[in-house]
Amino acid sequence: MKIAFIGLGHMGAPMARNLLKAGHTLSVFDLVPGNVEALASLGASAAASARAAASQGEWVITMLPSSPHVKGVYLGDEGVLAGAAPGARFIDSSTIDPHTAREVAAAAAKRGHPMADAPVSGGTGGAEAGTLTFMVGAEPELFDQINPVLAHMGRHIVHCGGVGTGQTAKICNNLLLGISMIGVSEAMSLGAALGIEPKVLAGILNSSSGRCWSSDTYNPYPGVMDNVPAARGYAGGFGTDLMLKDLGLATDAARLARQPVILGAMAQQLYQMWSAAGAGTQDFSSIINLLKRPS
Amino acid sequence: MKIAFIGLGHMGAPMARNLLKAGHTLSVFDLVPGNVEALASLGASAAASARAAASQGEWVITMLPSSPHVKGVYLGDEGVLAGAAPGARFIDSSTIDPHTAREVAAAAAKRGHPMADAPVSGGTGGAEAGTLTFMVGAEPELFDQINPVLAHMGRHIVHCGGVGTGQTAKICNNLLLGISMIGVSEAMSLGAALGIEPKVLAGILNSSSGRCWSSDTYNPYPGVMDNVPAARGYAGGFGTDLMLKDLGLATDAARLARQPVILGAMAQQLYQMWSAAGAGTQDFSSIINLLKRPS
Amino acid sequence: MKIAFIGLGHMGAPMARNLLKAGHTLSVFDLVPGNVEALASLGASAAASARAAASQGEWVITMLPSSPHVKGVYLGDEGVLAGAAPGARFIDSSTIDPHTAREVAAAAAKRGHPMADAPVSGGTGGAEAGTLTFMVGAEPELFDQINPVLAHMGRHIVHCGGVGTGQTAKICNNLLLGISMIGVSEAMSLGAALGIEPKVLAGILNSSSGRCWSSDTYNPYPGVMDNVPAARGYAGGFGTDLMLKDLGLATDAARLARQPVILGAMAQQLYQMWSAAGAGTQDFSSIINLLKRPS
Amino acid sequence: MKIAFIGLGHMGAPMARNLLKAGHTLSVFDLVPGNVEALASLGASAAASARAAASQGEWVITMLPSSPHVKGVYLGDEGVLAGAAPGARFIDSSTIDPHTAREVAAAAAKRGHPMADAPVSGGTGGAEAGTLTFMVGAEPELFDQINPVLAHMGRHIVHCGGVGTGQTAKICNNLLLGISMIGVSEAMSLGAALGIEPKVLAGILNSSSGRCWSSDTYNPYPGVMDNVPAARGYAGGFGTDLMLKDLGLATDAARLARQPVILGAMAQQLYQMWSAAGAGTQDFSSIINLLKRPS
Repeated sequence: MKIAFIGLGHMGAPMARNLLKAGHTLSVFDLVPGNVEALASLGASAAASARAAASQGEWVITMLPSSPHVKGVYLGDEGVLAGAAPGARFIDSSTIDPHTAREVAAAAAKRGHPMADAPVSGGTGGAEAGTLTFMVGAEPELFDQINPVLAHMGRHIVHCGGVGTGQTAKICNNLLLGISMIGVSEAMSLGAALGIEPKVLAGILNSSSGRCWSSDTYNPYPGVMDNVPAARGYAGGFGTDLMLKDLGLATDAARLARQPVILGAMAQQLYQMWSAAGAGTQDFSSIINLLKRPS
Repeated sequence: MKIAFIGLGHMGAPMARNLLKAGHTLSVFDLVPGNVEALASLGASAAASARAAASQGEWVITMLPSSPHVKGVYLGDEGVLAGAAPGARFIDSSTIDPHTAREVAAAAAKRGHPMADAPVSGGTGGAEAGTLTFMVGAEPELFDQINPVLAHMGRHIVHCGGVGTGQTAKICNNLLLGISMIGVSEAMSLGAALGIEPKVLAGILNSSSGRCWSSDTYNPYPGVMDNVPAARGYAGGFGTDLMLKDLGLATDAARLARQPVILGAMAQQLYQMWSAAGAGTQDFSSIINLLKRPS
Repeated sequence: MKIAFIGLGHMGAPMARNLLKAGHTLSVFDLVPGNVEALASLGASAAASARAAASQGEWVITMLPSSPHVKGVYLGDEGVLAGAAPGARFIDSSTIDPHTAREVAAAAAKRGHPMADAPVSGGTGGAEAGTLTFMVGAEPELFDQINPVLAHMGRHIVHCGGVGTGQTAKICNNLLLGISMIGVSEAMSLGAALGIEPKVLAGILNSSSGRCWSSDTYNPYPGVMDNVPAARGYAGGFGTDLMLKDLGLATDAARLARQPVILGAMAQQLYQMWSAAGAGTQDFSSIINLLKRPS
Repeated sequence: MKIAFIGLGHMGAPMARNLLKAGHTLSVFDLVPGNVEALASLGASAAASARAAASQGEWVITMLPSSPHVKGVYLGDEGVLAGAAPGARFIDSSTIDPHTAREVAAAAAKRGHPMADAPVSGGTGGAEAGTLTFMVGAEPELFDQINPVLAHMGRHIVHCGGVGTGQTAKICNNLLLGISMIGVSEAMSLGAALGIEPKVLAGILNSSSGRCWSSDTYNPYPGVMDNVPAARGYAGGFGTDLMLKDLGLATDAARLARQPVILGAMAQQLYQMWSAAGAGTQDFSSIINLLKRPS
């Protein structure tokens, strides 16, 4: 298939490479020329603008940092809508607010372009390995066509509902994740302070009603698990500032929906406090160090 | 074995019945005469005081509502320590603070009685079925002997460490559980308010990093799961006021340990607010109704 | 003086009337024709657009509901910048985020128009009586000229610093106010629940270190003061939804500044919860009913 | 008058000295012999126990660190009730929970001793200068007699209602104070981060609806006021750990009363976090350093 891929950062570049490997024809664009050249050297066609890239694709896939970027890349004078071939279909894999996702999709629909929001989970590891999860908000007809496009980049392609629900699913999941991680941090820290062996405590939580991904797969307490950020000084993983961004999207969406998110708002402030203390690029599970008494 | 069982409420009575069924010899006591009679009619020997009951047991098991009860029953003039036969061993299955658990066990040890704290999870259903989980704080020698005593009441007998760690494990788990349930309530309510189908959202959370017991086993959103309190108007289950009690134990223990538990303290206040609104006896997952917009 | 006044809602209309009374020459515009006619009947000149109104003024004053309105009115095709006479000076009295205030002022400065942000406190009562407080962010030269313009609408004209600091002062004040009001609500509710007479408790707080405006001037507990919203069923006053808007501005500004505002974020969620319960148009001191046990 | 004074710590010692200076006859007791000797050298009569001291007084005044101390000193075998002369009246100036205050007063009443709870505010400075505020919970007849006793130690003697209301007033005030101080810290930190001059911002808050004691009398931002802890590195004043103790009393009393105190519980956790970071003995206004970006 002919695919335009726009946004070649840490996530976008490996995703585009997986499409190339799968035999698709790619035209690519990114604001950083080096990012474009790297893909061109692997066989992609380098475009001079989002508009130019989009003109070459049956599908346009975007992977951008935030809502204003998405608006700019789709709606700007040198943007996707200005250049896309008639009938081209769009997939935005950026993590943005559901409101903007719906707004841009509506503008695309007016010009005859079906559009899906399809944010991912799985991090750069999943992007490299082609094992991402895509949470897709799209009309059923579009979703049915989308599978072959996404299949080489991800393992789970989940249909969440109409346009915007992909973003909704992602921010709801990360709202819960941000809360759970602090909950596990408090429970593990309290247990340790009261004299229970952290590994034993984690085992009990993991077979009881406190069980959660933050405890059984990504435990923040050092020494409890191998192969998690806590085992390597919280390097790598999903950064505190990325969690902060997603909690910002969640609390903003909650405000528009007039929906209280009390622990979510508190979690956001705690990650904010932790980021302000200099931990913005550490894995978000390092938040335990905001709470734990020094050992 | 000869076992004294003291405290025959909603949890204690079925636990004692399971011991009788397993062929143990029981002497029982409770402040409510009817509770004693009910067990006596099944073959237990009715005692007139905790002291009298204790005098008949190689093991003394207690299941009481709170720390002051435990102190009174063990240390009072008509209490267990005053009556216990030399070398009798004690198991307290009440949920109380770890500090009191250690204090009572120390008093018992002085008189030559090994003592374990062994709070349970699994609720009245687990008590009836004999499938409780026991979280046991005890010296290794005592733990090795305890298994045959608890085996007819529970399925999982977990050694958490020395005296007090059973209580610690339980309050840490319930601290995390109380937080997670509100986290799931916020994520599900936000998703629904933003237009994603709750069942679809739950499916996504359950296969992503938001996954937790409160979401995949006990989801609070009506219509998502069968056989959970949310499917029957939040009747039965683990009451809001019981969660409130356990969060009180956790935040108190945290205060003594000088350990911040920020989301835990906030969760406690929200369950307090919900209890004050009249929901104290509803299952704790009904907390979602404090947050969810009316549908 | 010749003044263009744009935005004739509940606050803007009485402010404009006070300018007329003081003998200024006004050209006015509002999206609601009736609002324009009402001022025209008092002697103002009705304009057909913000651009047309602005063309008639040595000063342009705007009083608008939110940041997007301010951007639209100043920067739009039919807006103030498109029509303003050379050298006209601008005063925006809307309550918006400091970031947008700086952005619009920068656009105005490029075209040679000095601009101040000057949000007010004092409510519709103060607007009618001409006793508002203006918190002014402006260069010193502009501030020196501004006094005669604002003097007929307000009693206190406070210079807060450069452009944007007027908005900053206002949102910082209202952040603190939103927190204090809940603090007073908790203290008064707790005292009443513990059996102290609310009026006596208020008297003690007001002469002690708990003293604050929310306690000594605007006490939320019914029966403690006359002439406050609590004395009239929380009708009138400063609505819950207005407080919610200002806390939204404060937490958004905090996010951009990477500054944790923990109690502020919590207060925002509580007002959100209270608004969701149907109290959006009640005075914000009614938040006490979210906390107080029914008497 | 003949007065027994028990508890001669940082607060009690200067209070007792002021009674001596005023010409009263004192018998004194404290667990620390040096504290007793210091008062004896000024003319007090040294007693060997609370019981012995109490036997010498028409009035018994106590100033103790916490509820268990108060219970022990009044109800113990060597305590006040065991030794007091018939008709002696009691004043407890400790800061404890209202529940214990009522319990001890009821025990005293049974033996014919009228008792008041009369916690103070004003700190060691007020104790030295004899300018404390006494918040008195007592029956009207007792309150009428109490004034001459307290007048040499304090300037304001406030009747709060029946037994226990003195403690209630104090913990409600300090609950609000603990919240307000964090509110001011957030507002001042946010303003500074957004570029407004802190002194200017404080001036605006202090003449607006954000006005409170924590802002206009005890501002936590360095450089805003002289003669406050913020001006001397947060040395002296009212320690973080003392605020933590009072918030513990408030949230405990709230729990017994089933009254949510949401910002209060959050404030408690933040002071806990700050104390854990090593600031327990710094003035509580140093909490701003938990929030403020380093300047």
